[in-house]
Amino acid sequence: MNPVNNKRVIIEGVWPEIDGGRFPAKRVTGEKVTVEADIFSDGHDEISAVILYKKAGEKGWREACMKLLVNDKWEGVFTITDLTAYYYTVEAWADPFKTWQKDLKKKLDAGQDVKMDLLVGIGLMEKTIGLASVKDAKRLKEFMDIIKNDKTRSGDKAVPVIFSDDFTSLMFSYPDRSGATRYDKELEVAVDRPKALFSTWYEMFPRSCGSGPGKPGSFKTCKTMLSEIARMGFDVLYLPPIHPVGKKNRKGKNNTVIAQKEDPGSPWAIGSEEGGHKSIDPSLGTIKDFQDFMEEAGKYGIEIAMDIAFQCSPSHPYIKEHPEWFKKCPDGTMQYAENPPKKYEDIVPFNFESDKWKELWEELKSIVLFWIEKGVRIFRVDNPHTKPFNFWEWLIKEIKKDYPDAIFLAEAFTRPKVMHRLAKLGFTQSYTYFTWRNKKYELTGYLEELTRGEGREYLRPNFWPNTPDILPEYLQYGGRSAFLARLILAATLSSNYGVFGPEYELCISNAIAGKEEYLDSEKYEVKNWDWNNPDNLRDIIARVNRIRRENPALQTTWNIKFHDVDNELILFYSKKTEDLSNIILVAVNLDPHHRQSGWVKLPLNEFGLDLGESYLVHDLLSDDKYIWKGESNYIELNPFIVPAHIFCVKNRLRRETDFDYYM
Amino acid sequence: MNPVNNKRVIIEGVWPEIDGGRFPAKRVTGEKVTVEADIFSDGHDEISAVILYKKAGEKGWREACMKLLVNDKWEGVFTITDLTAYYYTVEAWADPFKTWQKDLKKKLDAGQDVKMDLLVGIGLMEKTIGLASVKDAKRLKEFMDIIKNDKTRSGDKAVPVIFSDDFTSLMFSYPDRSGATRYDKELEVAVDRPKALFSTWYEMFPRSCGSGPGKPGSFKTCKTMLSEIARMGFDVLYLPPIHPVGKKNRKGKNNTVIAQKEDPGSPWAIGSEEGGHKSIDPSLGTIKDFQDFMEEAGKYGIEIAMDIAFQCSPSHPYIKEHPEWFKKCPDGTMQYAENPPKKYEDIVPFNFESDKWKELWEELKSIVLFWIEKGVRIFRVDNPHTKPFNFWEWLIKEIKKDYPDAIFLAEAFTRPKVMHRLAKLGFTQSYTYFTWRNKKYELTGYLEELTRGEGREYLRPNFWPNTPDILPEYLQYGGRSAFLARLILAATLSSNYGVFGPEYELCISNAIAGKEEYLDSEKYEVKNWDWNNPDNLRDIIARVNRIRRENPALQTTWNIKFHDVDNELILFYSKKTEDLSNIILVAVNLDPHHRQSGWVKLPLNEFGLDLGESYLVHDLLSDDKYIWKGESNYIELNPFIVPAHIFCVKNRLRRETDFDYYM
Repeated sequence: MNPVNNKRVIIEGVWPEIDGGRFPAKRVTGEKVTVEADIFSDGHDEISAVILYKKAGEKGWREACMKLLVNDKWEGVFTITDLTAYYYTVEAWADPFKTWQKDLKKKLDAGQDVKMDLLVGIGLMEKTIGLASVKDAKRLKEFMDIIKNDKTRSGDKAVPVIFSDDFTSLMFSYPDRSGATRYDKELEVAVDRPKALFSTWYEMFPRSCGSGPGKPGSFKTCKTMLSEIARMGFDVLYLPPIHPVGKKNRKGKNNTVIAQKEDPGSPWAIGSEEGGHKSIDPSLGTIKDFQDFMEEAGKYGIEIAMDIAFQCSPSHPYIKEHPEWFKKCPDGTMQYAENPPKKYEDIVPFNFESDKWKELWEELKSIVLFWIEKGVRIFRVDNPHTKPFNFWEWLIKEIKKDYPDAIFLAEAFTRPKVMHRLAKLGFTQSYTYFTWRNKKYELTGYLEELTRGEGREYLRPNFWPNTPDILPEYLQYGGRSAFLARLILAATLSSNYGVFGPEYELCISNAIAGKEEYLDSEKYEVKNWDWNNPDNLRDIIARVNRIRRENPALQTTWNIKFHDVDNELILFYSKKTEDLSNIILVAVNLDPHHRQSGWVKLPLNEFGLDLGESYLVHDLLSDDKYIWKGESNYIELNPFIVPAHIFCVKNRLRRETDFDYYM
Repeated sequence: MNPVNNKRVIIEGVWPEIDGGRFPAKRVTGEKVTVEADIFSDGHDEISAVILYKKAGEKGWREACMKLLVNDKWEGVFTITDLTAYYYTVEAWADPFKTWQKDLKKKLDAGQDVKMDLLVGIGLMEKTIGLASVKDAKRLKEFMDIIKNDKTRSGDKAVPVIFSDDFTSLMFSYPDRSGATRYDKELEVAVDRPKALFSTWYEMFPRSCGSGPGKPGSFKTCKTMLSEIARMGFDVLYLPPIHPVGKKNRKGKNNTVIAQKEDPGSPWAIGSEEGGHKSIDPSLGTIKDFQDFMEEAGKYGIEIAMDIAFQCSPSHPYIKEHPEWFKKCPDGTMQYAENPPKKYEDIVPFNFESDKWKELWEELKSIVLFWIEKGVRIFRVDNPHTKPFNFWEWLIKEIKKDYPDAIFLAEAFTRPKVMHRLAKLGFTQSYTYFTWRNKKYELTGYLEELTRGEGREYLRPNFWPNTPDILPEYLQYGGRSAFLARLILAATLSSNYGVFGPEYELCISNAIAGKEEYLDSEKYEVKNWDWNNPDNLRDIIARVNRIRRENPALQTTWNIKFHDVDNELILFYSKKTEDLSNIILVAVNLDPHHRQSGWVKLPLNEFGLDLGESYLVHDLLSDDKYIWKGESNYIELNPFIVPAHIFCVKNRLRRETDFDYYM
């Protein structure tokens, strides 16, 4: 082993560092990166540490100071400004001047003779003068002369200079970093546009937007829905696959194996003689119609999210053109998808490990690029966990190289490690278990895990109370109040959320008995919704989404904090901006059947409020205002009206002492 | 990015992996290494995984099976047999046969037609036959023929074969691992001899072992102590530095700055005109005397541990011979050690960063080698945290390359991260904060941290209730009972422990007021102890150490488990061997002033005991025996007799049904 005598400072435990640097941390432009590291040296030397960071393509490092927190843990921060990868590492060094200053102070405090120490300090100053600019060197010399001329035992004239801000900051400007330790990895931040962190999704089957019974919808008829979707405040409209639907083995209503003539089939059974993944179902329109629709949506501030489902119906053109991309049964027939004992006869999976896998992978990439060229930038990826991780990592890297604004939502309702891996390897957002978390301890535990666990650095949650595949039991049994509570929870716990509508706003709750499947699921039939049912939730959805748009505290997920309530059925939490200019408190009655009340407890100091003073909380849902005082305040939530408060905390209330004529 | 289509299985979260593999995990020969990893694949395939491991120098890997625990976490175990480095990694693969078996079972359970599945299976068998030995291929073919000839819908004849142990284990013997994922790091285990994990230390100043007042001890007089040290059950005798003590700036009694003529000085102020780190203080004897002493100790099963204090007195020969290894003050005088405002005028530190650092480091290494050649293998290293980490890492690696049986105990009572770094870089054992942990929550919390935290893999604790520098307040105020309780805690919580004697067994508790320093500390004066004071603790120390020797459960630290007692002043814990052949329960009264009693609660199932049956607990300290029954049992501990029980759990008690003539 070769001995090394410099680099006395140790840097370890750097965070974020995902899987030893194998994967980047994630941020959107405008977000900060807080870097932590354990930094220490032998002996008693004082240490200085900086984050070194740069944008992709930059040669030189920028620097951000780190400060010691506790137990040798240091922290620093830098801000992401551009839509490009960032790199960072940590550098630290033992600082002789800082050490000397600290020791001198201790000796002075103990009344010791410091004449020799001043001489040592002058040596350090002389070195620094050698490194300094002409101007700074001149100033340092002036300071040094005062110190040199002080011959007193306790440095009476020198000491005020030595501890002055002017002198200290000059000395700090020219540290000797020749023995500095640089952390041995350069770590990456993958950067997305802000929508990756703050997005409001609406999922809708375009074929159900027809003009009446027996008249399926098309992109043209869908256009008429856009104003209402925009009024409700959604900014991403996600469409299930819009490609030609397979005819062979098409599923009928309620997933029956034999379809009737009029059954439209599941849109996830992609491909027929009318085309495959690069085609549009002719009943929906042409590619031009789709582009017109996207353009119209854009006028309403709505982006279209496309479904990526890499699988085929048995009538997909690929089956004939590229039989080598599929698995065959020993009898030569096509091997349908299955998850024993379940069978998906209307779907044939790709064989990602076929001998021609390279051609297959390239073709799949070309599908994504095809739609990107048509203007799509958001993709909701169907069951990514049933295709190789390596494939996704390669595909997303390839796409984002040229299209850094592309967003991929992973629809993987699977085991935790698998979901995390997909997020790490590049998916921009992830579906979550929120769909099944109803109780207070489940929600607080899960949100703590999402926002304080390692995944906070790379897994951006997107909360969905329902999907075409999942009508949770809470919604099946809880009635309108359950739909309201789950919407408000999704919209305020997570800055990314979505609903599958119009099932959601119409509070559709009929399930197949004992299952979480919608009865008469829209997956297998064209619906003709009563869009104007007076019981619909559209107004309150619009209000919740407006509250999200108008309150920056709700535009990130990472700032969630739960607070105590003396009632297990009320969930109470806050979100606030760092500068406290926007503080939101949310209380939700988790019991859809009964009125619940309780005393909530606020950490006033964290909100910049005084214990003794009154303050105003403004319920942005009801527009009611309440005067609160102190830490504990009473709330009551009636599920048959609105099962939640979304309070904005206003400044403290004015008192007599504020009145113009008081003094 | 280049696409990769094999290696579908992901291996991450491998543990132990210290700092990303930068440092090895540690074991002694005979210990097991439990390797964990998160292993999963896309899709629903069944996975197989193995640990690959080998000894240094071996080319091929050995294999140990891993099994799935929960949540995609897998675990496997291998055993260290030789005193050499081991390497390990993990390999895993999707297993088509296992997957096929699993899916077939599900389909059979659902009553589906499996004819096609049997054909698929036959394809897998044919592949395996191609890989198998002639003998196994023949057997597999016989099985395959039965399966082939079965034309029934539900494989009536095939199924019993397919799920038979014979067939399954044959198929498992030839997995297709061509697409296997190998974890991308080879991780190391640093291996020590068993004494690194189980050692019983006694620290003693040889100069205080004289034959009477005014007659300082020497190695010759020390020999007479060996039988008593051996009777007390210690197997490591650690001597403070035995080199010539500095005369310049020698410290007097109680650390006074000016020594009297008869004051012997602190042995850590090493070096005088009589020699330095490679010499023996002439008043103790010659190198030959030292070797004789070591040899004599060996006869009693006692190893001598030498103190390594890399610092000099101002009269050390190095000061003149190698002034370049030391720092000078601006006035040209030698710079003494200090930790402002404290000054250590009798000590001059080495300058590890001097221009001649390489020569210095080599010289320091030569000191260790000098004593190794004289027969020393255990070193207690003084204040390693005030010398560069790089130096220690280099030194210990260099020494252990040729002397893998060398043991280095780090005397670093400093911040947690620093102590952990020293352990990681190579120190065999570490002093701990045990010295200051007295309360139940402190002891349980600290032991949980030591044995369940990451340090469990690399930091071997050595518990010391006192040292020449530390007489903790608990011992100052708690009397004889406190000494007994702390000894028993150290000896049973940690498999490595030591005491500084005869201060310990004589219950010396006079401190400098308000400090943890011994009053009239042995560091600065020759003592003449009343070895035979009738109040001494020698008999009980001997008993405790005999219990340690006779009970393998106490010979490791990693098996500690705390159990409930309904009294905050009683600590109750167990240690057991894996095969349950030795189960030890320890209850300690932490209150040195009052009798304490309580109900202890035992997890009987973990001990292989039945809830309903009686069992015997034998107190190895008092030799009393108690019949216990069920989970809760009563104990009472009188600090004025012995403040602890060390129970050995015996088999369940015999009952009438066990009696010969009962049936």
